[in-house]
Amino acid sequence: MSAEPLRYEKLAGELAGLIAGGVLNQGERLPSVRRLAQERRLSVSTVVQAMRQLEERGLVEARPQSGYFVRPAQMQRSEPQARSTPDSPMPVDISERLVHVLEAGARPGVAPLSAALPANELLPIAALHRLYAGVARRHPHLLESGSHVHMDQPALVRQLVRRSLAWGGPLPAEEFIIVNSCTEALNLCLRAVTRPGDTVAVESPAYYLMLQLLETLGLKALEIPCDPRTGMSVEALELATRNGGVAACLLVANGSNPLGSLMPDDKKRRLATLTAARGIPVIEDDIYGDLHLGNDRPWPVKAFDKTGNVMLCSSFSKCLSPSLRIGFVAAGRHRRAVALQKTITSGGTNPLTQMVLAEYLESGAVDRHLRQLRRCYRLQVEAMQAAVSRYFPAATRIAQPQAGYVLWIELPEHIDTTQLHAKALRERLSYVPGELFSPSGMYRNCLRLNCGNPHTPEIDDAIRRLGLIFGGGEAVAEAGRG
Amino acid sequence: MSAEPLRYEKLAGELAGLIAGGVLNQGERLPSVRRLAQERRLSVSTVVQAMRQLEERGLVEARPQSGYFVRPAQMQRSEPQARSTPDSPMPVDISERLVHVLEAGARPGVAPLSAALPANELLPIAALHRLYAGVARRHPHLLESGSHVHMDQPALVRQLVRRSLAWGGPLPAEEFIIVNSCTEALNLCLRAVTRPGDTVAVESPAYYLMLQLLETLGLKALEIPCDPRTGMSVEALELATRNGGVAACLLVANGSNPLGSLMPDDKKRRLATLTAARGIPVIEDDIYGDLHLGNDRPWPVKAFDKTGNVMLCSSFSKCLSPSLRIGFVAAGRHRRAVALQKTITSGGTNPLTQMVLAEYLESGAVDRHLRQLRRCYRLQVEAMQAAVSRYFPAATRIAQPQAGYVLWIELPEHIDTTQLHAKALRERLSYVPGELFSPSGMYRNCLRLNCGNPHTPEIDDAIRRLGLIFGGGEAVAEAGRG
Repeated sequence: MSAEPLRYEKLAGELAGLIAGGVLNQGERLPSVRRLAQERRLSVSTVVQAMRQLEERGLVEARPQSGYFVRPAQMQRSEPQARSTPDSPMPVDISERLVHVLEAGARPGVAPLSAALPANELLPIAALHRLYAGVARRHPHLLESGSHVHMDQPALVRQLVRRSLAWGGPLPAEEFIIVNSCTEALNLCLRAVTRPGDTVAVESPAYYLMLQLLETLGLKALEIPCDPRTGMSVEALELATRNGGVAACLLVANGSNPLGSLMPDDKKRRLATLTAARGIPVIEDDIYGDLHLGNDRPWPVKAFDKTGNVMLCSSFSKCLSPSLRIGFVAAGRHRRAVALQKTITSGGTNPLTQMVLAEYLESGAVDRHLRQLRRCYRLQVEAMQAAVSRYFPAATRIAQPQAGYVLWIELPEHIDTTQLHAKALRERLSYVPGELFSPSGMYRNCLRLNCGNPHTPEIDDAIRRLGLIFGGGEAVAEAGRG
Repeated sequence: MSAEPLRYEKLAGELAGLIAGGVLNQGERLPSVRRLAQERRLSVSTVVQAMRQLEERGLVEARPQSGYFVRPAQMQRSEPQARSTPDSPMPVDISERLVHVLEAGARPGVAPLSAALPANELLPIAALHRLYAGVARRHPHLLESGSHVHMDQPALVRQLVRRSLAWGGPLPAEEFIIVNSCTEALNLCLRAVTRPGDTVAVESPAYYLMLQLLETLGLKALEIPCDPRTGMSVEALELATRNGGVAACLLVANGSNPLGSLMPDDKKRRLATLTAARGIPVIEDDIYGDLHLGNDRPWPVKAFDKTGNVMLCSSFSKCLSPSLRIGFVAAGRHRRAVALQKTITSGGTNPLTQMVLAEYLESGAVDRHLRQLRRCYRLQVEAMQAAVSRYFPAATRIAQPQAGYVLWIELPEHIDTTQLHAKALRERLSYVPGELFSPSGMYRNCLRLNCGNPHTPEIDDAIRRLGLIFGGGEAVAEAGRG
């Protein structure tokens, strides 16, 4: 790859500069695509690509039939910045505290802001129930006895292979293993390529469940700094692995949790090349890949892997139903080792549910549903950003997620979200404190909010009251009035 | 407990002596229950209890409307004997070989003698499919989004509590955690109470999957000798744990796999007391408890546990369908730790399938089905014993399983079942070689056969041909003719 920026990147950079410099004001309409193409002697598709990049960076927004507009300033609140991380791997010890946070957050009457769960009304629950009834009648042999070796349904694997065309595939059918959830997939992959005591490179901040997995498997975590927009620093990973000693790399390239970052293709390619060259297996969680907030389905790191080094894990819990309990791994050259772990971890996976999922994916309804869902999540994330911007302290930094539906917030330095969590709970408010995303306890002034629900007045009020707890501007005024 | 034998035990002992001494001959009818009661001045129920014990020991059999008869000699072939085991715990390394054995055994056209899978025609497949269709229609909210914390279905837990009345219960509803399989249950329990490097006491011979679990979790196995009829030696366990250093005890008290042994209640009580006193958590696999081959549902060790020390694991894979993928743990005082492992291992368990199982268990059909199934398994095991007796070398010892449907065979010392396995496979025959049931490679002259299928002429012929490979009597004659 040349280091020279591509034409569209150059144009995007120029326009971003105009926005940053105030030459283009918030809410202002940008010159039309046609005009820019003419003026700059670029093709229309290059200009469109530049606009998409600006959209993905949250700087402009498309309005139907009207063109592109500079996004309002409240959307442009400062974003969190990459932080430097400890040099040494360390054991993880967050599970006890995390369980408390998630259990408390799931109590009836508590605002649903902690676990990353979608609202029911966004999911195709009725269609799935109908399919269960139909599949149970139309395939009367699915529950027959059989070796777990033969339990994976070819019909489901076919659909996954078909869908993998959008991920830079097709991936070979032989690579797939059907499992009970994305969590189980991550688990199996980790067990397949590590031994207790090993070190695993993770994002900083990292998805807490990944940290819990390391904790329970007796693995150490090495935090790699992340850019809030573009994810894990490949340079930092390169430096951290130059002397060996890292058994695997565990990451979410598309819609990291909690940052919502999205690795650009070039970075993915470099990461795939580096890890392959150094023999470090990559375990990639792509559960938010279908829930990107930009225009195109981003490819996973797996798409840039030429050596079978990347294990791609995902499920349909975030977009169809968290209750289905079907996930998968495309395990590359680790297939045999992962399949063995599956056998001794839980045996096979329910074939009837597999067939329900296969038929739903085949129906075509899934793509309509995903388009609609992405629109909802995008609106919900934006509404949450606006609410946080309104109610939280002025110096608050707000992430600009590129995929998924969680929002990472950085409060002023002196605010301790772990300490304030109990107070929030007493007021039936919840969130996940930032320190639970780091084995070294970084991010104590950060928190993660779930945006899986429509932004109702109740949720807006919950954010207002959270703002009060964190000493937010409007909050202070509110308190004064009250 | 008094060491004095109870009345029925005394009577059973006397009658067993008469059989062993040839006073009562094979096939001969025993004195009627009424007559024995009169003559010995015992209550009818005491005599019946003695007869049941003799039945469970395989010495007599009940024939409807005719009374009790001494079982034919071929059923009385010598049984395998308890062997002494290594003093030290050791790491496990069987997975690679085992996967090969099970994969090869599952190939189309290979006689189904390796994995412990039941025949389809024995299972209520159609009823389960009907329930899926009905449940999907009648409970339209099951697949809705929700925290895994709330995914366990109270209706299923209620049925499990009800069923636990037959296990010395009722167990409290709060103890139950619904999981994807008994395998997953064992996994979670092990992870909840051990750390990599720890030592776990196991039966010798032990179920290979348990050994694989230890292997993958970096745990060491300490083999405890087992009596082929009554299971793990509590004395040996007492000795082996007198200096501490054992993190858990993993066993199948009802229908151990491969021996089919069944621990008497008194032994279970002593084991529960010993492990509680020494603070050694017990992980009990009770998957064959409902598939006992005697008259009464045996209680698990859990029934004798007063301290919450025993984690009872099971599923319905062996009696309803291996494809359901629902198991459970009643985790005692380890509940919280096991629930945490469940969350980070695979999240919740599909609620629709849970409801299908709950409705099946509620219907009452399950008890009729289990009675019928036990009869089938008993006949199949007996037929397999007879076939092995007929075709295998004269000095072969055959286990007398008390529960489950696998059969453990001990061949003459010089026969190496691992070495001969490749030869068997070439002839489309399969079994599990004995050494895979021991981390120290004991039992190289043993093998396990699956009796989950009706004893068809094809299966009988497969056993005949296996006999040939092992140099059996009829086999030699056959070879001479061929």
